[in-house]
Amino acid sequence: MKVLVLNSGSSSIKYQLFRVEDWQAPASGLVARIGEPEGEIKLNWLDADEASHSSQESLPIASHAQGIDHIIRSLRDSGVLTDVAELAAIGHRVVHGGVRFKQPALIDDSVIEAIREVVPLAPLHNPGHLAGIEAARAHFPGVPAVAVFDTAFHQTMPPSAYRYAIPEALYTEHRIRRYGFHGTSHHYVAKRAAELLGKPLDQCNLITLHLGNGASATAIRAGQCVDTSMGLTPLEGLVMGTRSGDIDPAVVIYLCKHLGLDADGLDRLFNRQSGLLGLCGVNDMREIDQLAAAGDERAELAIAITTHRLKKYIGAYYAELGRVDAVVFTGGIGENAAEIRRRACEGLERLGIRLDSELNEARALRGERCISAPESEVQVLVVPTNEELEIAQQALRTVADAGG
Amino acid sequence: MKVLVLNSGSSSIKYQLFRVEDWQAPASGLVARIGEPEGEIKLNWLDADEASHSSQESLPIASHAQGIDHIIRSLRDSGVLTDVAELAAIGHRVVHGGVRFKQPALIDDSVIEAIREVVPLAPLHNPGHLAGIEAARAHFPGVPAVAVFDTAFHQTMPPSAYRYAIPEALYTEHRIRRYGFHGTSHHYVAKRAAELLGKPLDQCNLITLHLGNGASATAIRAGQCVDTSMGLTPLEGLVMGTRSGDIDPAVVIYLCKHLGLDADGLDRLFNRQSGLLGLCGVNDMREIDQLAAAGDERAELAIAITTHRLKKYIGAYYAELGRVDAVVFTGGIGENAAEIRRRACEGLERLGIRLDSELNEARALRGERCISAPESEVQVLVVPTNEELEIAQQALRTVADAGG
Ligand SMILES: Nc1ncnc2c1ncn2[C@@H]1O[C@H](COP(=O)(O)OP(=O)(O)O)[C@@H](O)[C@H]1O
Ligand SMILES: Nc1ncnc2c1ncn2[C@@H]1O[C@H](COP(=O)(O)OP(=O)(O)O)[C@@H](O)[C@H]1O
Repeated sequence: MKVLVLNSGSSSIKYQLFRVEDWQAPASGLVARIGEPEGEIKLNWLDADEASHSSQESLPIASHAQGIDHIIRSLRDSGVLTDVAELAAIGHRVVHGGVRFKQPALIDDSVIEAIREVVPLAPLHNPGHLAGIEAARAHFPGVPAVAVFDTAFHQTMPPSAYRYAIPEALYTEHRIRRYGFHGTSHHYVAKRAAELLGKPLDQCNLITLHLGNGASATAIRAGQCVDTSMGLTPLEGLVMGTRSGDIDPAVVIYLCKHLGLDADGLDRLFNRQSGLLGLCGVNDMREIDQLAAAGDERAELAIAITTHRLKKYIGAYYAELGRVDAVVFTGGIGENAAEIRRRACEGLERLGIRLDSELNEARALRGERCISAPESEVQVLVVPTNEELEIAQQALRTVADAGG
Repeated sequence: MKVLVLNSGSSSIKYQLFRVEDWQAPASGLVARIGEPEGEIKLNWLDADEASHSSQESLPIASHAQGIDHIIRSLRDSGVLTDVAELAAIGHRVVHGGVRFKQPALIDDSVIEAIREVVPLAPLHNPGHLAGIEAARAHFPGVPAVAVFDTAFHQTMPPSAYRYAIPEALYTEHRIRRYGFHGTSHHYVAKRAAELLGKPLDQCNLITLHLGNGASATAIRAGQCVDTSMGLTPLEGLVMGTRSGDIDPAVVIYLCKHLGLDADGLDRLFNRQSGLLGLCGVNDMREIDQLAAAGDERAELAIAITTHRLKKYIGAYYAELGRVDAVVFTGGIGENAAEIRRRACEGLERLGIRLDSELNEARALRGERCISAPESEVQVLVVPTNEELEIAQQALRTVADAGG
C-alpha cells in the first residue's frame, strides 16, 4: 500500500510517494511551469534494489490535470507505482483551512467549497491547491483524498492569542485574526519531541521553531498549540528569507503615504524584498553565515536581528507557557545553522536553557538529537521536519478513521 | 527659582510650573483649542498657604504666541509667578528627536532645525512643539529653553533591536527604524526603581511597563534602554486605548486592498479605532474592568488580549536581558489596575516573578511600592510616573551643565 502526497501550487505540483509498510518514500518529484510554453518534469526514485535514479523532461504542461497525468506516467514508467489500486490515500497539502478545519478532512464537495471560501485569505495558495485537488479527483475517482491544512494545528489557540486589537467587525465580518501556518511541521516535530522526551505529547510543553525560508514559532501547552508567530498571513513573526516578520504596522501606512505604494507594491516589498534579503542582499542563510564570518557587516546585522527576534519569541512563549519541556529547532536553518541556534539560546540560563556547545556545533551529527547540556532544565532538540511524511500519515489515518 | 514645563500640541499647550527648592508644582494648566472660535484657558494653583484654586476662561486664542501670553498672565494673576526672571529654565516636551538627540538639548537654531527635520516622522506632534518653542522663545528671550525628547532614552538600543528586516535603503534613505516613545517616563520610573532597589541605576536590569492610554514596554540593561515596544511610531507593541499595537503587517495591506482604505483611512483605523476601543467599544480601562466584572464578554476579551500581550513582552524582555532586577508598572493602568498587573504576572514563577496578591490589590496603597512577594527573585514595583517633573529636572540640569 502506498500514499501519494501532493503539494499543488498555482503553476506546479510537487509530490512524494510513501510506502505504508516502512514509511519510506521510494519516489518524489515535481511538475513545474504549468501553463508556460516549456514545462518541467522531474522524478527521483529508488528501484527494487534501493538504487537511486532520476529523470528530467521538458515539455509543455497545459493544466494541473495534465500535470497529474505526467506524474502518474512517470511513476508507472519508473516502476514504483505499477497499479493505481496500490494507493490507499492521496494527501493534499492545503495552506489555509480557515476556522473550519481543526483536523485533516476527507475531501468531498463541501470540503472543496470550504477551501474555496477562504481563497481571499490565501490567494497565492488555495487556488493552486484546488486545481490540484480537482485534477487528482478526476484522475483517481476511486482513491480517497484527504486535505491536510497548514492552519489546522493552530486552531486550538485561545482568542487571547488569535484575536488582534482591531475593530471587532474586522474579525466577525472579514475573518481577520491570527491563523498561523507551518502547522503540519510544528505538529510533526512536537510529536517527535515528545517521543525523544519519553513523555506523552499531551504532557509536553514545547516551543517549536521552524526556521526555513519561511519561519515561525509555536507555543505548545499539553500538546496543543496555544500561540504561533505567523498571523493572518505568513508575513508576521520571525525574520525570514524575504519577509519582514514583525514590524510597526505604521511602517506599511508610512510607505503607502510617502512612497505611494499600493497594496500590490506593499505586498511585494514586505513579502519578497524584505527579511534577510532586504537587510543584506542575500536570502540564503548558508551564504549569510559565510559572509558574516568573512566580516560582512550587513550579513552580521541580518544574523543579529534574526537571532534577537528568535530569542524574544523564546522568552515570550516561555512566559506564556510558564513551564517548558523543550525548545525544538527544525527547518533548513533550525536543523543546520549551529550559530543561529547558539545566538538564539545565549544568555537564557535563567530560563533553564543551556546549550552544550559541542553537541550544538558537531558537524558530524545529523538527524534527531538533543543539543542541550545534561543540566539544562529545558531540553533543546533538533528534529528534522518531514511535512510530507506527516501529511501521508495523517491522510492514511483520516481514511482509516472514516472506515475507508 | 522655578522651571516651566510646556507640552505644546497642534492646538493646545499644557504646562506645569515647578519650584526648584522642593520640586513641587504650585501651578498647572492648559490653553486649548488654539485657532478655534472659542479657546479654553485653565489653571490650577496653590496659594502661599498651599490652598488650591482653579480658574477657567473661554475666549479666542489666535496662535501659540497668544497662548503663551495667556499662560503668563494666568500665572501672574494668580500670584504663583510674579516675575519671569524667576524662571531658571523652560523645558519643552518634544516627541521626536530622531537619532540626533540622546540627551535633552539647550534650544538654539540648530536644535529647532533638527526638530523640524524629523517632522515627517512625527507629523502630529513636532509641528505643535515647534510652534510652542518659537512662541516661548519670542516671549522669554532671556530664559534658557531645553527640549526633552520622548525618543532620547531609547537611543542606546543596539541595531539588532532598532532595525527592521526591510530593505536597507528604507533605513538609510527614509530613516525607517524603531525609535520608541514614552522615554521620559521610562527613564523616570527606572531611576525611581533603582532608588527603591537600593542600587545604582547602572547596575539595574529592568522591564518598565508604561500603561496609560498609550502603552509601551522597555528593556533596560545596566540602566540603559536596549529595547522598547513602540517603533517608528507609537502604534507598535502593546494593546492601547485606541491603537492596535502588534499585528501582522499584512493586515494593513489586506485592508488597503479589500476595503480600499488609503493611508489616512488606515491611520485612523489602526491609531484611533482599534485597541481596547475596537475590541469592546470602550477605551477607558476603569470602565472595561467594571464591564468585565459584570460579565461583558467583549470587555473580558479586551483584558485577556491586553494581558496576554503584556506577558509576552515581559517574557521577551526577560530573555533579552537574561537577568532582571525588577518589573516596573506605571501609567494610569499600570499604577491602578491591579487585575491587569495580576494577569500580566500570572504564571511567571519560573521567571522569578511572584506577586503578593494582597499588596497588589490593596486599594489603600498609593504611590511608589513593591507588590511582589518577599521570596520573589524579581521585584515587582509600582512607580507613579511624572514626566513633567522629569522634564523640569532634566531641563534645569541641562542649563546647569551648559554653565547657564
Ligand atoms: N548548513 C546550513 N547552515 C546554515 N543555513 C542552512 C544550512 N543548510 C540549509 N540552510 C538554510 O535553510 C534555509 C532553507 O530552509 P528550508 O527548510 O529548506 O526552506 P523552505 O522553508 O523553503 O522549506 C536557507 O536559508 C538555507 O540557507
Ligand atoms: N483605578 C483604575 N483602574 C483601572 N484603570 C485605571 C484606573 N485609573 C486610571 N485607569 C486607566 O488609565 C488609563 C489612562 O492612563 P493615563 O496614564 O492617565 O493616560 P495618558 O497616556 O493619556 O497619560 C485609562 O485607561 C484609565 O481608565
